[in-house]
Amino acid sequence: MANKKVVLAYSGGLDTSVAIQWLKDKNYDVIACCIDVGEGKDLEFIKQKALTVGAVESYTLDCQDEFADEYALIALKANALYEETYPLVSALSRPLIVKKLVEVAQETGAQAIAHGCTGKGNDQVRFEVGIHALAPDIEILAPVRDWHWSREEEIDYAKEHNIPIPIDLDSPYSIDQNLWGRANEAGVLEDPWVTPPADAFEWTSAIEDTPDTPDILEIGFEQGKPVTLNGETYPLAEMVLKLNKIAGKHGIGRIDHIENRLVGIKSREVYEVPGAEVLMTAHQALEDLTFERDLCHFKPQITNQMSNTIYNGLWFSPLMEAMVAFIEQTQKVVTGTIRVKLFKGNVVVEGRKSPYSLYDKDLATYTSSDTFDQQASVGFIKLWGLPTQVAAQVQQKGDLETKGQGVH
Amino acid sequence: MANKKVVLAYSGGLDTSVAIQWLKDKNYDVIACCIDVGEGKDLEFIKQKALTVGAVESYTLDCQDEFADEYALIALKANALYEETYPLVSALSRPLIVKKLVEVAQETGAQAIAHGCTGKGNDQVRFEVGIHALAPDIEILAPVRDWHWSREEEIDYAKEHNIPIPIDLDSPYSIDQNLWGRANEAGVLEDPWVTPPADAFEWTSAIEDTPDTPDILEIGFEQGKPVTLNGETYPLAEMVLKLNKIAGKHGIGRIDHIENRLVGIKSREVYEVPGAEVLMTAHQALEDLTFERDLCHFKPQITNQMSNTIYNGLWFSPLMEAMVAFIEQTQKVVTGTIRVKLFKGNVVVEGRKSPYSLYDKDLATYTSSDTFDQQASVGFIKLWGLPTQVAAQVQQKGDLETKGQGVH
Amino acid sequence: MANKKVVLAYSGGLDTSVAIQWLKDKNYDVIACCIDVGEGKDLEFIKQKALTVGAVESYTLDCQDEFADEYALIALKANALYEETYPLVSALSRPLIVKKLVEVAQETGAQAIAHGCTGKGNDQVRFEVGIHALAPDIEILAPVRDWHWSREEEIDYAKEHNIPIPIDLDSPYSIDQNLWGRANEAGVLEDPWVTPPADAFEWTSAIEDTPDTPDILEIGFEQGKPVTLNGETYPLAEMVLKLNKIAGKHGIGRIDHIENRLVGIKSREVYEVPGAEVLMTAHQALEDLTFERDLCHFKPQITNQMSNTIYNGLWFSPLMEAMVAFIEQTQKVVTGTIRVKLFKGNVVVEGRKSPYSLYDKDLATYTSSDTFDQQASVGFIKLWGLPTQVAAQVQQKGDLETKGQGVH
Amino acid sequence: MANKKVVLAYSGGLDTSVAIQWLKDKNYDVIACCIDVGEGKDLEFIKQKALTVGAVESYTLDCQDEFADEYALIALKANALYEETYPLVSALSRPLIVKKLVEVAQETGAQAIAHGCTGKGNDQVRFEVGIHALAPDIEILAPVRDWHWSREEEIDYAKEHNIPIPIDLDSPYSIDQNLWGRANEAGVLEDPWVTPPADAFEWTSAIEDTPDTPDILEIGFEQGKPVTLNGETYPLAEMVLKLNKIAGKHGIGRIDHIENRLVGIKSREVYEVPGAEVLMTAHQALEDLTFERDLCHFKPQITNQMSNTIYNGLWFSPLMEAMVAFIEQTQKVVTGTIRVKLFKGNVVVEGRKSPYSLYDKDLATYTSSDTFDQQASVGFIKLWGLPTQVAAQVQQKGDLETKGQGVH
Repeated sequence: MANKKVVLAYSGGLDTSVAIQWLKDKNYDVIACCIDVGEGKDLEFIKQKALTVGAVESYTLDCQDEFADEYALIALKANALYEETYPLVSALSRPLIVKKLVEVAQETGAQAIAHGCTGKGNDQVRFEVGIHALAPDIEILAPVRDWHWSREEEIDYAKEHNIPIPIDLDSPYSIDQNLWGRANEAGVLEDPWVTPPADAFEWTSAIEDTPDTPDILEIGFEQGKPVTLNGETYPLAEMVLKLNKIAGKHGIGRIDHIENRLVGIKSREVYEVPGAEVLMTAHQALEDLTFERDLCHFKPQITNQMSNTIYNGLWFSPLMEAMVAFIEQTQKVVTGTIRVKLFKGNVVVEGRKSPYSLYDKDLATYTSSDTFDQQASVGFIKLWGLPTQVAAQVQQKGDLETKGQGVH
Repeated sequence: MANKKVVLAYSGGLDTSVAIQWLKDKNYDVIACCIDVGEGKDLEFIKQKALTVGAVESYTLDCQDEFADEYALIALKANALYEETYPLVSALSRPLIVKKLVEVAQETGAQAIAHGCTGKGNDQVRFEVGIHALAPDIEILAPVRDWHWSREEEIDYAKEHNIPIPIDLDSPYSIDQNLWGRANEAGVLEDPWVTPPADAFEWTSAIEDTPDTPDILEIGFEQGKPVTLNGETYPLAEMVLKLNKIAGKHGIGRIDHIENRLVGIKSREVYEVPGAEVLMTAHQALEDLTFERDLCHFKPQITNQMSNTIYNGLWFSPLMEAMVAFIEQTQKVVTGTIRVKLFKGNVVVEGRKSPYSLYDKDLATYTSSDTFDQQASVGFIKLWGLPTQVAAQVQQKGDLETKGQGVH
Repeated sequence: MANKKVVLAYSGGLDTSVAIQWLKDKNYDVIACCIDVGEGKDLEFIKQKALTVGAVESYTLDCQDEFADEYALIALKANALYEETYPLVSALSRPLIVKKLVEVAQETGAQAIAHGCTGKGNDQVRFEVGIHALAPDIEILAPVRDWHWSREEEIDYAKEHNIPIPIDLDSPYSIDQNLWGRANEAGVLEDPWVTPPADAFEWTSAIEDTPDTPDILEIGFEQGKPVTLNGETYPLAEMVLKLNKIAGKHGIGRIDHIENRLVGIKSREVYEVPGAEVLMTAHQALEDLTFERDLCHFKPQITNQMSNTIYNGLWFSPLMEAMVAFIEQTQKVVTGTIRVKLFKGNVVVEGRKSPYSLYDKDLATYTSSDTFDQQASVGFIKLWGLPTQVAAQVQQKGDLETKGQGVH
Repeated sequence: MANKKVVLAYSGGLDTSVAIQWLKDKNYDVIACCIDVGEGKDLEFIKQKALTVGAVESYTLDCQDEFADEYALIALKANALYEETYPLVSALSRPLIVKKLVEVAQETGAQAIAHGCTGKGNDQVRFEVGIHALAPDIEILAPVRDWHWSREEEIDYAKEHNIPIPIDLDSPYSIDQNLWGRANEAGVLEDPWVTPPADAFEWTSAIEDTPDTPDILEIGFEQGKPVTLNGETYPLAEMVLKLNKIAGKHGIGRIDHIENRLVGIKSREVYEVPGAEVLMTAHQALEDLTFERDLCHFKPQITNQMSNTIYNGLWFSPLMEAMVAFIEQTQKVVTGTIRVKLFKGNVVVEGRKSPYSLYDKDLATYTSSDTFDQQASVGFIKLWGLPTQVAAQVQQKGDLETKGQGVH
């Protein structure tokens, strides 16, 4: 009987290299598939390594632009932050990776897909829920979750099968990165009272080491998408990579967060998101200028739900589609330019302008060009306060002391 | 017939000094009332000035502690930020001032209350709605909104009545401040493309001028209230004032925001909130450590509504009372210590600890002390993804291209 | 100098007939415009009456289909109910009427638009905010709000100008109706302890007078739109009118509600919405069958906001456009058939089916055809309960009594 | 070695009787515990049966009043409905049962608790998550989920061990009931196109069989709690049981719902909740009369979250405690009387009155006693519509056609 075929999400690291052999032991033909979402991987090297350690086929896909334009951009338009803090770095790349794995499985006629996640993180959920949302009937394998080995046992197995051991194996950290950011956990970070050590960061300078001269940037948006930097046009992926460098140098984008994982535990996560922080800050400032008030006040409910939906592995879902329709509709006026100053860890919005700006100087001003009808306020206040005034007349005992205590 | 009595919210500035005379012209006996919520006013001077320019009585009330303990503290416990940005500086002081004005009116038998707000800001709403929520039948007067004078006409009137003209009259800005922060608008700030000039700030250093050595602070909380700074106990008002100094020196707490006013216009506001920013950052970090996940995820809905309620002048309302009950209930576990580093405009949380910490290293760790049951994830993922999997089986055409487009 | 032209929203009743003369007195040329949104008006009679009482031009527009297909249908797809009760009858027709008035004004070169609303209802807001959202610079006139006449004075003025007095003038009620429903207020209804008298209702039978045999209907939907009734295809307007008759006969669709008006007061409103209630009940049942769980749980937030937005006169707004995009995206699967039983005031959903049904008997069944993996529940429960379990371990005193009290 | 002790949630039915023997086989001493939450069980009979089939101890607890006063009442005050439909019948009883099981376990020194739920419903989650929230370290057993028997195998095992087989064993339905309602699923109900047959209902008459004379009831509330019926005082449990009879006779309280279970599947549930429907309808009507507008509009967010929290088994959680604090605070004004008419399946609110009523006839009336300032509306509308008006001026192309399309 022919072996079953499995498409393995392959990173080139120890875990997924060992997984190739482990899957072979289980009589699977392994099709390695490495997807670059902006880590700057050496794809040719990884492709060969997969074959060397036993894959029957090896695919590498450069998906940087697709990731930027169809995943990170949605998150940017939505200002998506999980727990108002985390810009969803890994969570955003999973649906793209999943989609590619399913496509490769369908093209190669594979019956299964395998991933290298452990059993205690969010990524296993994102892989498996995403795969079954696109290919409900495909088999899913999770070698690393299933083999129940200690680190030592894994290394022994690797040596026994001539699988190369990476030289940075004793790094204390668990890292994931793509162009939208870099996530770091484990090691000494597991004590929330401890300051993250210098070696926890790679993309961003400590503030102590940042330049004494700021960078001033003008970022141009069209319908919510950043398209120019200081007047020059860039594809989004390239712009993010460039901003990661510039803003990283200024110490921007460090996040240190106690986060609630979907699998029920709190973990401490350290992120570096220099480019994402600059773009999200600028994008929000442009919406502040161009969004009508009710839209300003309601959109955060969509933002919050979309952040949860992405974090929780439900990108491919009817709710996500409807939220994307909402967000896209809002971005029609998010066109204009934001001037930011990058300096000593800070992204400071210093100026904003837009053809759709709703800021009206003649309404807002205190000078004689004032066009605001101040007497309209009298009627407004009467009706605005009427419900609480009637409530006070009927329900309050006229006792200020009590009233005070009721609130405190 | 005897004159009617009016209690006037008196600041000592030109507008409310002129208002005393203007109200006298309308046959009111004016009872001036100046309430200090942390501006560090010279209350004795103001008291005398009111009498000098024509008030029949003059009250001054030092309400710094009451403001800190019963208004700012609620906002801190709620992490309240209007439009996720503005810590409600002026909006928080209005209900306290309103309460005091109503008390003075009741004690002195006044039939009316007057305030010095113009007709295009939020504060007129907060004064009038608040007053009528506490004293539904009292008359409200708004001289500045009603007199329809240009600046020049007002000055002429002042000179004519021997009302002193302040020496800083030609300041381009409109300022309001209390211990929770300082608000600045108008002048050159009315162009949103212009960088705020140096003279727009008073409490905070430009990052360029901040010290090259950070301050590290340990802030101790008990049930959501900050009580110690580096181990020393402080009343809240004093702690905030102290932090305003320390954090201001490091350039912390500058906000530059296009804000949606309740009266229907966008305005550009520049705030300085050094102490508030430090305390809110630390308080949030402690909640991240001690709040159960669902509480973490739901509380922002209360935060958002409470921020709007306060901003919109509805502090004295049944909804506010219910939200306060919610918030107070949650704070029982917000006890512990947060270590922050103040440096170059940044408040960086470096460490957190609490007897109620829900971060469990043995659950979160990737080391061998792991107590998390990784196999439980298999069942979890199956049921978590079941709804989207069934939806995919029934509703999706098996067409990945289409699927992709549906989302983008 | 030529008179200014004003387009008047003309109903044919006393108020707007008097308004024609009143506007003439103010040197306006009045262009009457009567828009039929399903009241079954005698448009030809109204057209002539406008000219008779003094209009220079008179337009009548039959907009029943447009109202059904582009306004009521949006509300149906959204399941929109203000305060979870009122299907927005009048609120839905205002944007259509406003749009037509603006079009007529633009075509006729009118400088102003006038409406016949009083100063204490919601409709004045909906007219004026809607008009200025489409034509920001047009003048708006509100004769009825401005003339400050008692009923008697108005009648005297009408008689003086030969304006016909309607024979039902002494009706105690204030009525507005269109094909989506009939709204009734005022008169004896102003006492919320009083049962609405029989003459408050016109479209619906008292339950005491309904047939003893039910009607069973099958309603077919395509992408959220009801298209067939018992297998026969109908335009929506016609279907609603037909259902108003059938369901009204069964006493369905009476609503008696204490409602919070936008202008700050509570009012008691009596509505009759037989057709709308049948369609909304059926539509909701079809969504229950075809919506993935997260979409079921999130959509009500959009529903609630959209209901408020429509009620508050903000149909023409960026937020509304974004919410419509959300809703339309969700309706792609709302195709199928709902069987309802109409009987004695009740709309009972008895059966539902859809090609997109997510109800999976083999997953749900307790019989041997069960395909649900019950062991997956074990892992699911472990992770689902982990956050509260850890919270219990750390934060609870092990004291059940206290725990109980904390909740009660 | 001594046997371990397990407390079993015992109902007296086949499953939990077999579970006693099954647990004995596993070397547990079984302490049976039957908790009556209003089903009207024969507790003495059940107590003996447990001992007969092998329990070493047998407890029965009458918790009807505790269930009504501390669980159902919270749900009533919150107007809690899962998916806006289901009044949480079973979900409400689980936390009380769990609390009692844990208390018995602690008193008897048991190391484990067992329940009789299957592996595909919500109740297993509610039991296990609830138990671990109160006793994080206790062992939990789920015999019915674990034994993997077919119905026939279970019956064979029962016969073999002399466990009595109930005479209604061939009922097609799976029933759970308490005083707040009766839940029914399975059997022919598993086809959502099929009308529920007559034998699916036990508490409510078919509308065809209801009396031709209505019952009119006056329900008196104090601070949200129903305390009188037609002027007579009742304990809540007794009032609910009485209303179940009266309203059931009129065919009130049938619910037929496609519901999203927490474990990821849709199920069709048929409920009978006559008393709960009457009380919830009346309670809501009293809140409509006494709640200030913003509270009316915000409370549903708490209602929705609390409904989910209860449904999802998270009663004992910090979020629940905070929501209860919110709800209790709001109920201070929910005092008054609601008059309802029960007739032919309908609960019609016909009158409402309260000392805290915010309905103000003089503000709402269209008669000459009107105290509402209609001119205040002019200013109100100007500012209310200002944001959309400015947006229209800046962002709209002046093209009504396009505008229309954007919305439809």
